[in-house]
Amino acid sequence: MCQLLGMNCNHPTDVTFSFTGFAQRGGRTDEHRDGWGVAFFESSPDGDDRGLRHFVDHQPSCESPVAQLIAKYPIKSRNVVAHIRKATQGEVSLRNTHPFVRELWGRYWVFAHNGNLENHAPRLHVHFRPVGSTDSELAFCWLLQELAKNHAQVPSVQDLTLTLSELLPQIAKHGTFNMLLSNGQALWAHASTKAGSQGLYYAQRAHPFTTAQLVDEDLEVNFAEHASADDRVALVVSQPLTRNEHWTPMRPGELAVFAGGRYLSSV
Amino acid sequence: MCQLLGMNCNHPTDVTFSFTGFAQRGGRTDEHRDGWGVAFFESSPDGDDRGLRHFVDHQPSCESPVAQLIAKYPIKSRNVVAHIRKATQGEVSLRNTHPFVRELWGRYWVFAHNGNLENHAPRLHVHFRPVGSTDSELAFCWLLQELAKNHAQVPSVQDLTLTLSELLPQIAKHGTFNMLLSNGQALWAHASTKAGSQGLYYAQRAHPFTTAQLVDEDLEVNFAEHASADDRVALVVSQPLTRNEHWTPMRPGELAVFAGGRYLSSV
Repeated sequence: MCQLLGMNCNHPTDVTFSFTGFAQRGGRTDEHRDGWGVAFFESSPDGDDRGLRHFVDHQPSCESPVAQLIAKYPIKSRNVVAHIRKATQGEVSLRNTHPFVRELWGRYWVFAHNGNLENHAPRLHVHFRPVGSTDSELAFCWLLQELAKNHAQVPSVQDLTLTLSELLPQIAKHGTFNMLLSNGQALWAHASTKAGSQGLYYAQRAHPFTTAQLVDEDLEVNFAEHASADDRVALVVSQPLTRNEHWTPMRPGELAVFAGGRYLSSV
Repeated sequence: MCQLLGMNCNHPTDVTFSFTGFAQRGGRTDEHRDGWGVAFFESSPDGDDRGLRHFVDHQPSCESPVAQLIAKYPIKSRNVVAHIRKATQGEVSLRNTHPFVRELWGRYWVFAHNGNLENHAPRLHVHFRPVGSTDSELAFCWLLQELAKNHAQVPSVQDLTLTLSELLPQIAKHGTFNMLLSNGQALWAHASTKAGSQGLYYAQRAHPFTTAQLVDEDLEVNFAEHASADDRVALVVSQPLTRNEHWTPMRPGELAVFAGGRYLSSV
């Protein structure tokens, strides 16, 4: 399966520390060598996070020049979704590399999936079509199609969470469906399996900040030296990234929402 | 106004030489400092160029770490669209940075525009909506909406060219509309103004290859050392990139199609 990393913050924050450890799982500390990708929402001057940077590479992230750039270039973002792929369905190629991006209601939507869906052949009768051949992009297209039917414009985070809580189980019944979704306003995480094997964990960083040590690389950072007292960061990952932070396992079937750098609620 | 660079090749080719000179126009040899972007279509194992890398940065391209990566990292592609922005409408931010990307009929479409459109307020009644506030992205959304009405699936290059030849003048009558469009199968270029001031030029590289010298940087390359006898490359730019190649000015109102690395036809 794959590895997921999501970050949600109240202030634009760079993900270089967490990404440095995460990228090692793409071929060095883990076996996921079939491409990787990351998307960063970025602020506009009006404070609305509609700008998006999207990097994908079919090279293993531990060797990718693009991953090296991201580990060094502090791109500040309030919502980040990253994915390292171990192919189950669909060949190894750029068009099958997560995260996937589409526009809906004048906002970009970013989606990444860890798992495998069987016999999921929903009817796509609106306009979202997969470019690649993965079960994941097909599920994303169906999800956006159904969201577009349920709302006329971008709904509130609460309303969107309710709609997602009705739609996601319809995909999840077809297999393993751990996923991250963001539109720049919040980060949604759905775990379909128990944390540990393939599920998801989350952690929250807030005052008082401590020192965290990466699991995948001999690197530690004292967030107290870098963060302000009101900074809040929430992280969602397939496997804990650090040794000395509290990682909460998500329960199977849980849909959690993160906004403003904190765990908001779950369904 | 802005600077455009498009490349179309018969074999996947890296754009590092041309991009090195082009990137200098973003703040060093020219005044376009309001962000830049580039999109590369990449082959899948089935030979179908549906994969896409999309890099955007709001920093001037002459200083951007992402531009430095691209000038060094030889990404091989048959269709490339690049843009350096000098803002006319819409604030300087990532969501207003060209090229813009959307999916239609299971293919990504990439669009970049040099010019300024006035009183262009088309009705968007299907599903493509601008994320940013530029006249350019609005024109792109309308163009895709109308393409989607004219064809049920990806048409042939010839059919698409005919449809574009009907649609583009409807946009161009609102102002200056020099643009590049690609779906990975071909590169379309539309010039609305005379080459020189703001229009477009194209050049073709083929056997026998010669040495080319960048206008914007003290760098030359002997393509005979790098290219195979059957390689063909077509380039479309706002201003000639090299001193010793033949750059053909496009005429005002011309729509040219490039496929397989050559100028195919124009309308």
